[in-house]
Amino acid sequence: MSDFSDELRPADPQGPDILAQERRRSNINVSQLAQHLFQRDQFLERQKKILKVIQNRSYFSKKNQLNLARPDRYHLSLARSKELRRLALQYNWDAEDYRVASYLVGEVSPYALHTLMFSTSIREQASEEQMKEWMPRTENWEIIGCYGQTELGHGSNVRGIETYARWNPNTNDFTIHSPTLTAAKWWNGSLGRTANHAIIVAQLLLPDDNGKPKSYGPHQFVAQIRDMKTNKPLDGVVIGDIGTKVGYAGMDNGYMLFKNFRVPHKALLSKNTGVSLDGKYIKPENQAIVYGSMTFVRASIIMESRLVLARACTIAVRYLSIRRQFADRDDPAGPERAVLDYPSVQIRILPLVAAAYALHYTGEAMFGLYWKTRADIEQQGDMSRLAELHATSSGLKAACTLITADGSETCRRALGGHGFGGGSGMIPLNTDHLDKPTVEGDSWMISQQTAAYLLKRMIEAIAGRSSEPIDRQFIDYLESRNSDGLYDIYNKDEDIVRAFKDRVSYLAYKAYERRIIQQQSWTDLMVELHRLTIAHSESILVENFYNAVFGGRSNLPLASSTLTVLRDLFRLFGFATIDSRTTEFILSGTIPVQQLQSVTPTILELMKKIRPHAVSLVDAWSIPDYLLDSALGREDGDVYNALWRKAHLENPLNMDTFNPDFRTEEIIMGEGGENARKRVEKLALGVYGHEQRNGAQSKL
Amino acid sequence: MSDFSDELRPADPQGPDILAQERRRSNINVSQLAQHLFQRDQFLERQKKILKVIQNRSYFSKKNQLNLARPDRYHLSLARSKELRRLALQYNWDAEDYRVASYLVGEVSPYALHTLMFSTSIREQASEEQMKEWMPRTENWEIIGCYGQTELGHGSNVRGIETYARWNPNTNDFTIHSPTLTAAKWWNGSLGRTANHAIIVAQLLLPDDNGKPKSYGPHQFVAQIRDMKTNKPLDGVVIGDIGTKVGYAGMDNGYMLFKNFRVPHKALLSKNTGVSLDGKYIKPENQAIVYGSMTFVRASIIMESRLVLARACTIAVRYLSIRRQFADRDDPAGPERAVLDYPSVQIRILPLVAAAYALHYTGEAMFGLYWKTRADIEQQGDMSRLAELHATSSGLKAACTLITADGSETCRRALGGHGFGGGSGMIPLNTDHLDKPTVEGDSWMISQQTAAYLLKRMIEAIAGRSSEPIDRQFIDYLESRNSDGLYDIYNKDEDIVRAFKDRVSYLAYKAYERRIIQQQSWTDLMVELHRLTIAHSESILVENFYNAVFGGRSNLPLASSTLTVLRDLFRLFGFATIDSRTTEFILSGTIPVQQLQSVTPTILELMKKIRPHAVSLVDAWSIPDYLLDSALGREDGDVYNALWRKAHLENPLNMDTFNPDFRTEEIIMGEGGENARKRVEKLALGVYGHEQRNGAQSKL
Repeated sequence: MSDFSDELRPADPQGPDILAQERRRSNINVSQLAQHLFQRDQFLERQKKILKVIQNRSYFSKKNQLNLARPDRYHLSLARSKELRRLALQYNWDAEDYRVASYLVGEVSPYALHTLMFSTSIREQASEEQMKEWMPRTENWEIIGCYGQTELGHGSNVRGIETYARWNPNTNDFTIHSPTLTAAKWWNGSLGRTANHAIIVAQLLLPDDNGKPKSYGPHQFVAQIRDMKTNKPLDGVVIGDIGTKVGYAGMDNGYMLFKNFRVPHKALLSKNTGVSLDGKYIKPENQAIVYGSMTFVRASIIMESRLVLARACTIAVRYLSIRRQFADRDDPAGPERAVLDYPSVQIRILPLVAAAYALHYTGEAMFGLYWKTRADIEQQGDMSRLAELHATSSGLKAACTLITADGSETCRRALGGHGFGGGSGMIPLNTDHLDKPTVEGDSWMISQQTAAYLLKRMIEAIAGRSSEPIDRQFIDYLESRNSDGLYDIYNKDEDIVRAFKDRVSYLAYKAYERRIIQQQSWTDLMVELHRLTIAHSESILVENFYNAVFGGRSNLPLASSTLTVLRDLFRLFGFATIDSRTTEFILSGTIPVQQLQSVTPTILELMKKIRPHAVSLVDAWSIPDYLLDSALGREDGDVYNALWRKAHLENPLNMDTFNPDFRTEEIIMGEGGENARKRVEKLALGVYGHEQRNGAQSKL
Repeated sequence: MSDFSDELRPADPQGPDILAQERRRSNINVSQLAQHLFQRDQFLERQKKILKVIQNRSYFSKKNQLNLARPDRYHLSLARSKELRRLALQYNWDAEDYRVASYLVGEVSPYALHTLMFSTSIREQASEEQMKEWMPRTENWEIIGCYGQTELGHGSNVRGIETYARWNPNTNDFTIHSPTLTAAKWWNGSLGRTANHAIIVAQLLLPDDNGKPKSYGPHQFVAQIRDMKTNKPLDGVVIGDIGTKVGYAGMDNGYMLFKNFRVPHKALLSKNTGVSLDGKYIKPENQAIVYGSMTFVRASIIMESRLVLARACTIAVRYLSIRRQFADRDDPAGPERAVLDYPSVQIRILPLVAAAYALHYTGEAMFGLYWKTRADIEQQGDMSRLAELHATSSGLKAACTLITADGSETCRRALGGHGFGGGSGMIPLNTDHLDKPTVEGDSWMISQQTAAYLLKRMIEAIAGRSSEPIDRQFIDYLESRNSDGLYDIYNKDEDIVRAFKDRVSYLAYKAYERRIIQQQSWTDLMVELHRLTIAHSESILVENFYNAVFGGRSNLPLASSTLTVLRDLFRLFGFATIDSRTTEFILSGTIPVQQLQSVTPTILELMKKIRPHAVSLVDAWSIPDYLLDSALGREDGDVYNALWRKAHLENPLNMDTFNPDFRTEEIIMGEGGENARKRVEKLALGVYGHEQRNGAQSKL
């Protein structure tokens, strides 16, 4: 489609020249910093290797996906998932390679629950015998599994699910049944159209001494749910996809109802729990183990969050360095300035650049804690850190997913109008990740668990007992809280850490006063308990960041110029967080009112220092253009040509000409009013199945 | 599709019973409150009348629209727009009726810019002669117009646009030209596929004394851009739709480039400005008038914002009253509690319920100010309040759109998992309104204009001069700021208003100190100036709310029980806002540190009082189920049955069965691997035009 636009180019300065200059003026060694961030698991090597395999294959092209109808998005996504599996076999990818490949494709696949929750449940909850039966078929993908826990009527409160599995003493099997409509499994990924097997979470009902069914709480059962030949639901099961939603267009989140559906005795996953053949319950040794996989999922979410935030920041920093708008108000005749040079833009973006690094160091620390705790349990049966792990991971999941969800929306808004276009790369980024504060434990709900843990530790500390790391912090606080131990956060970096910790201790002590001394109801304290958890999580983020860039363990293989910038990022993260929570710092006495006046000026000053390094700091996250899929954020900075090509050459809507006259029903020029009416009515009302997918042809 | 799910119903208690009970326990007279909110323009009568006409017409069914591909959404939306115009003629709707109809359809139509910006520009900027030429054709929809201002390279900074219109002295016409790619008009609504005419904003270039072109800044030209028969772009114009984006799926936001495109002398809209036939510039009397339509658009955005927020609150309050999750932690054996009974949920929703009312009263006040200022100008040529109007509307636009965009996302998250489903009704609500802080003046950008105004007024006040309403506030502040005039916000409602005002005066004075006395650069002050504008806007919101429910003008036709609740809403809005901005209240000395401790407890107490009325307070907004399009928020409360029907009976994806086995490329069962591959490749790569729309048929 050649026309006079072919000869035009964007006004100067050109994006590529600007980014080149931005990169020249920072003394950060980007490839060294990238190696430092991704030292585990050879991530960068894997990314390079896999990118080469997938990025030019037709299925993996992203250029048309935002134009597709939702059902077609599923078709495409299933085709990609299958191809990815075939490629994994062909190129001998290991599990980590496969994970990197999924990350690069950048959408949630209909196989996702098979590789994640289904496999994990089998691995962690199946007895040895069950492992033998299920693991090979699962690992060879002979079966496709999903995980059926959440129901129409119950999400956060797993104990409230209604689906039950009743033990039949005569036939030695279970009847899985949905007593109500709200018992329908709901939102379960990969279930809607794909999976032929499922982990089914159901209330285990065993007969009591009088033969009446008694619930032993939710348990996991593994069962086939669809016919292996036809992929139709088995008798006694109704399954379907729940429909459109925010993001996840390629994933078939599903629903499922059971009517007296029989599964054998061996369907109950029984590594840690079980039912004897005479119908007696076998108690798990430690209930907490059962929730191990949930903790792992939460830790992974934190690590994922950092890359999502880094991706949003990459787009924002690169584009806002290139975008020019307005001259300096004090030099109105001067040239237009880069948008990122305005403090009113910096204050929205640069603290998020810092936050991505904060999340990184805490993510690394969390994984360390997770594997250490697991090793302690498996090797020494030592479960002493399980409560801490659960509480910490819950609180961090809450805080980090909120930072990322709010942060990526903040980035989008800072992009101005172009942030709303398909060329921004922000659409899948936002829609597929906004749910993170909600899924795997709503952030406002699980924060209560963390607060309960902190309150318990405060009670111990007040009693003078200390057995977990946080206790020491509380005891120190109790000893010194009446002395005038104010901190100098402007001149001593370690005082920033101390201020965050004292704020937690103060809030925990307040919670103790209200709950234990004044005997207030838990419900009335919920708002303050949520704030306590967020404060604790922020304290962990600040401390891990501090330890990484100042601490003894920080023999970082980084040039000192890089380390200097990372330290400014630490300060910026600390001060920006303080600025958004001043009340608590003031009430806890950790920061005196007189110090408040300097918070904003300090932030402004730090941003000035960090600004020249902004592009390098996002470059280090090494997010390839294929994943970014963003005209605004592309590595070479050729923003406007890319936006133009996408609109002018790749938009299917531009291939038709339309009739704008209201006096005729004709829509596409030449199709005629009557044909148009029939065609559009089908679009409006939905004529399902093949007929609808081919609906457009009826007009010819 | 009959199956055993037909017999199931949700677990008790049933949603309809719960909502009935919620409505019984509030003594608010809902229909009286609704009449009070919508007293202007017979809104409720219009809504009822129009709903009856459109809600059962097939084009206006919303049940399939989220399943559609983006091009098909445009087809449907254009068909709806045409039908709406035909219905308007058939039923004799006036402009206000038509506006209500568009509101109820709930999407931005491809005709939207014709009715809004195109008509308005003609009306406000055309000379009498031009009016005669254009108005009848515009009002009869013989032509469809759009508004071409924003460019690929310039949005906020209108003065920076590159498209120019050069006066040709020999031919007495203008050449409109795009010198670069970034000069491409971009994002302009209705332009992409629909409009045949456009207002084109271009730099007016006239020859100076030496015959060299000199720019007189952006001016509006009206011109035909597409052929009236074929609807193809005229020679010298390239036009297209910019592609996918967040929301606005049915709107054809477009791009446009010009190559030496000639338009006649009379194309320049010249009510207030112009070019004489000998090429001399005719200055506008007051430049501010030219931007009048922008001010009107901003005022309308504020009024729209309140209804968007009210809609999000309606869905949230109704569903969260119905949703049960967890028993009371202090009564674990008790029944599960309504989610809205948890303070951790209330604190996210109830302040937004209050904010919707706050926006309402300020919106009403703003419209009053707008019409009064217009009348003053037109009747007495009195432009003295224009600066205030512009500053106030800019600041309020910034603050109110941020409140609504953040607020509706907060509502969605509070809904838990179901908030992300298509059945929530939140998808169009969020995607079509998240852009409001960005469009028609980015909130962070236009807030600078308001701050500049406030700074100017502070300079006047310090000089002891007073000519505008805000000056009095500043002078009072300057006189009393060193006295210890602390307020009792907990016991005196008027002190809440005073505290908000003093905070503004303090921030304005600080800005004065930094800018005028310390001579700091404007850029360095941007963050604080933005905060000043937000503070001022919040102060206006608080004051108008106070005046409405306490003030002399508040002879509200409301039962005292209703007024009591509205007063608590005022307090909640005030305290929730204070809670999020404590630093400024403390630094400005309006609220002493000792008072901080009580902010949260006061909020919790107010929420307890408001909670029983929550459903009635959202009912009063009278948002019909047709507009809500929400299983969660439906008026009758039958949430779970509605979610089930939508998923089980209306989801096209469920009409096909899929092949989950990775070893074959087959996607739909039975279509065969090779057919599937060809079909899916087309989906991935996009094969444009008719061929793509009918792509699916190739597999048959």
